[in-house]
Amino acid sequence: MPRIPVPPDVDEFLARANAAVIATLRRDGSPHTAATWYDWEDGRVLLNMDASRIRLGYMRRDPRVSLTAIDLEQWYRQVTLIGRIVSIQDDPDLADIDRLARRYTGREYRDRNRRSVTAWLEPEQWYGWRRGGSWTS
Amino acid sequence: MPRIPVPPDVDEFLARANAAVIATLRRDGSPHTAATWYDWEDGRVLLNMDASRIRLGYMRRDPRVSLTAIDLEQWYRQVTLIGRIVSIQDDPDLADIDRLARRYTGREYRDRNRRSVTAWLEPEQWYGWRRGGSWTS
Repeated sequence: MPRIPVPPDVDEFLARANAAVIATLRRDGSPHTAATWYDWEDGRVLLNMDASRIRLGYMRRDPRVSLTAIDLEQWYRQVTLIGRIVSIQDDPDLADIDRLARRYTGREYRDRNRRSVTAWLEPEQWYGWRRGGSWTS
Repeated sequence: MPRIPVPPDVDEFLARANAAVIATLRRDGSPHTAATWYDWEDGRVLLNMDASRIRLGYMRRDPRVSLTAIDLEQWYRQVTLIGRIVSIQDDPDLADIDRLARRYTGREYRDRNRRSVTAWLEPEQWYGWRRGGSWTS
């Protein structure tokens, strides 16, 4: 599996507001998946969750995650990033969830009482698929 | 997290040709994710892979998986199934990959030389999200 950094066309793909699913590890080591908004900045992935989300505890316990971003229009176009959560911090002003909400919906996040938490994913490896096979650059 | 079986409206959602991402476990226990076709039959999930797919080895080594199906039109609608791979068998006549290809593309699988392998996922727990929050029935 190729190491990071990703090539320019993968970088461009990840910068789009794709659908994404993140896998974390449960206490017994089994995988847990959830759809998620994300943003892509300088080779890292911004994630944001309500403080009550179960996967937040999983990330705190074991930082190893995998995220697959898929193109909603042609979802065989996909890029997977495998890496670690390198920081988890509160988002008291909702700045990060608003950033994600604007990216995906065009406006700020509706629930202003949310207890919002930001996590940054630092990818170590990646792979992708496009029509016809493996995404290589 | 609710136990299986899923309620009727979740069953109906899973029967649609949704996008999906499956998480498996790598040798070191870290998660691996990949977009995948699937079918839903009597509460189990049909998966099919080319014999060369890396996740096939992961499933053979540790059967614990998690699959998130998302609605391509409104992808906050999502259902996650957590469970185990309970069987892995060759698909020499391409019957299962053709079944998936017809479900997603309307026609049989294009590559007739594929070494095709079928896996069945038996879910044990599920959860879902719809607009407004948790999917409860």
